Amino acid sequence: MTPSAQDIVTPVPEGQGATSLLPNGAPQPDIPLAVKLFAELEQRTGVGRPGHGINRTSYGLGEQIAHEIVLREAGRMGMVCEVDAACNLYMTMKGRENGPAVMVGSHLDSVPAGGNFDGAAGVLAGLAVASGFFKAGRRPARDLTLMAIRAEESTWFGASYVGSRAAFGKLTSDELDHVLRAGDGIPLGKAIDAAGGDAEKLRAGTAHLDPSRIAAFLEPHIEQGPVLVGEERPIGLVTGIRGSFRHRHAWCEGSYAHSGATPRAYRRDAALATARLVVAMDDAWKRLTAAGRDLAVTFGQVATGRDAAFSKIAGRTDFSLDVRSEDLEVLDFMRGELAEAVAAIEAECNVRFHLGAETGSQPARMDSDLLAHLGRIVQAQSIDARKMPCGAGHDSAVFAKMGVPTAMIFIRNRNGSHNPQEAMEIDDFAEAARVLSGFCEEGPQERR
Amino acid sequence: MTPSAQDIVTPVPEGQGATSLLPNGAPQPDIPLAVKLFAELEQRTGVGRPGHGINRTSYGLGEQIAHEIVLREAGRMGMVCEVDAACNLYMTMKGRENGPAVMVGSHLDSVPAGGNFDGAAGVLAGLAVASGFFKAGRRPARDLTLMAIRAEESTWFGASYVGSRAAFGKLTSDELDHVLRAGDGIPLGKAIDAAGGDAEKLRAGTAHLDPSRIAAFLEPHIEQGPVLVGEERPIGLVTGIRGSFRHRHAWCEGSYAHSGATPRAYRRDAALATARLVVAMDDAWKRLTAAGRDLAVTFGQVATGRDAAFSKIAGRTDFSLDVRSEDLEVLDFMRGELAEAVAAIEAECNVRFHLGAETGSQPARMDSDLLAHLGRIVQAQSIDARKMPCGAGHDSAVFAKMGVPTAMIFIRNRNGSHNPQEAMEIDDFAEAARVLSGFCEEGPQERR
Repeated sequence: MTPSAQDIVTPVPEGQGATSLLPNGAPQPDIPLAVKLFAELEQRTGVGRPGHGINRTSYGLGEQIAHEIVLREAGRMGMVCEVDAACNLYMTMKGRENGPAVMVGSHLDSVPAGGNFDGAAGVLAGLAVASGFFKAGRRPARDLTLMAIRAEESTWFGASYVGSRAAFGKLTSDELDHVLRAGDGIPLGKAIDAAGGDAEKLRAGTAHLDPSRIAAFLEPHIEQGPVLVGEERPIGLVTGIRGSFRHRHAWCEGSYAHSGATPRAYRRDAALATARLVVAMDDAWKRLTAAGRDLAVTFGQVATGRDAAFSKIAGRTDFSLDVRSEDLEVLDFMRGELAEAVAAIEAECNVRFHLGAETGSQPARMDSDLLAHLGRIVQAQSIDARKMPCGAGHDSAVFAKMGVPTAMIFIRNRNGSHNPQEAMEIDDFAEAARVLSGFCEEGPQERR
Repeated sequence: MTPSAQDIVTPVPEGQGATSLLPNGAPQPDIPLAVKLFAELEQRTGVGRPGHGINRTSYGLGEQIAHEIVLREAGRMGMVCEVDAACNLYMTMKGRENGPAVMVGSHLDSVPAGGNFDGAAGVLAGLAVASGFFKAGRRPARDLTLMAIRAEESTWFGASYVGSRAAFGKLTSDELDHVLRAGDGIPLGKAIDAAGGDAEKLRAGTAHLDPSRIAAFLEPHIEQGPVLVGEERPIGLVTGIRGSFRHRHAWCEGSYAHSGATPRAYRRDAALATARLVVAMDDAWKRLTAAGRDLAVTFGQVATGRDAAFSKIAGRTDFSLDVRSEDLEVLDFMRGELAEAVAAIEAECNVRFHLGAETGSQPARMDSDLLAHLGRIVQAQSIDARKMPCGAGHDSAVFAKMGVPTAMIFIRNRNGSHNPQEAMEIDDFAEAARVLSGFCEEGPQERR
């Protein structure tokens, strides 16, 4: 991907690549602590065979162990620790000034046989920063609250952002009662209670967090795509979390017929019609990319029906469509493109599309002032970063939606996420921690 | 399908639609005989439940019964009957003149749970014509040899045109030994011997038929597509049997990746690449259709791999491609289009196509003089016919390849073939028989 000039935060000036220093006397993040904790997490929550990944089930044993490790370390630094009704963990280091706190956090659960870095990197980056201040005998500008969030991976409970929504009192009774955990079928509310939480409080809508008391929420997270690796940049600053619209179970209705004996005009070819739809949506994506708009279009599953055969025109295809953008306008535009393409192809190919239910989510914009501030820190530290959208969902979307100035820092990572091959280099993690540390040292700026 | 003016053999003049008469004194085909025999075939070779089709397995009981029915009727008319080493049946009525014979024939086997008309209609049309001459006490111009061909449906033995190739001594030892019947696994040679044939003779390449002694081979057959139904024409005159090239087990190699986190330029999307290939081949078809060339392009099976998921870019698709044309030049052109599209899409989408083995067949042209002669008869009888290509393979392809002037007459038929819903009207069958009868009455014309 060739970034446009405006995407590059800091083209490092010639010969200055090595001068990555914090302002005089500012604490350095405690990277050795993070290295030690990553190893402990891998050892204690791994599936037992090296290279086969880790299991930190939401509200399960692995997640619990991870929370205990983090709590132990925060306790050693004398941080004030709290647990809310959903078992989210808050660890606070007092700041030099009064005023809304700076929060740093991410989740500690994982997908089954997942990687060690997805989620945990954000929490350990916060601990490394706190430990840096602790070891330097210095306080951050504002109260620094680390948050270890519960149940972010919707593989377990088919609901998004369970922990962060619970922190704002936004879980519903319906979800607590009827969303069941994959694997063991335990309802969310019961799983929360079993982990030491209080589902009744959540049912009442009790919030632990007050948006007005949070100056900023910062979430470091490994990049789940290949952009930073491809561009050889250690970190990225996320401009927004993409929203989406999806048709998970769409299908195209045509007619099976003899491939040799059925002329073009008599065909109702579902395979051809679906191919035309895939290409039409991709062409629209190309046009929007040329216009500089953010978008990703994916037909992840496409298959002709059970009755398909080599010498038959396909009478049916089933397919899924996933359209993502950080820009609501782009999503609306693509919804229109989809409807137009469907109508045109139905007429041309004499088929019928059944798109089924639309699901999806709203895009979440990261805070532009916060982003600018982080950009300045990145530049001062001569880190080679880029601005980029985030394609997957993260707890940051909840904070942004609640009106908290929110930002994400992506850390370069090979091989995607949600698999044991996740590969984050500790040097890249350290760059993200340094940016965080710089921010905590300076404190949030006056809002314009 | 809108036929071009040249495709229409006989635009029936206003007010003359009913004047379908043979020349004075010419015999009328014995349609009641055909009706009776269709009923007997259905009753004796049906699967036993009305509407569930018939089973006339190649070299199996159903085919044997059909041959016995036909042999019995030919014997009643005093036709000279012979059986060759492959159990093909020849029934000859002496002609008025000497010279090469006129042959009329088709096959009597069927696919499993097939229809009653595919194949049988051609043999019964010949019997109806012979019976017409017999009842009129008149002889055809030339010797008329009806041929009931064995084992045309390659569902049973995975080899094409077993019976007709055997009649010309073209079955190989390898086929006789190693082609096994679907269902019971009996080798072709053993099945032929079991039906009363002589595989050893076939192994020696002994031919029963001599192309130089056949003036014309005519095969009436139900249309397996919807063209004649759509155009409300009772019969069609086939211009050629399409050849083909095929990739039965092609696949596209991409990379699985996160649908939200992987930008366009990093994608290796097999679903998109395959869709682009389907559309490219269809666009080429459109252009050739506009140029008046014969073609049919079908991707009958397309499916993303087992690891496909809704939120993953597809790392693999498997697909089949079937390209048919009666024009060798068009097949070659499309082979070129395929190679070009593959190369362009591989470059654009960063994928790799693996097309696998190419199989296929050569197109067989029907004889243009014979076609012109049949066209004149059709016109004289005020039958509303059209010229059309034939998309499926038929024994006529073998006769054409052996240098015999060959033609096929398509009979209107609803619901395609190879299924119990085949629906040929007896009035349309009668039109085809009248054309045949007219041809037998006139005899083949001098070759130009």
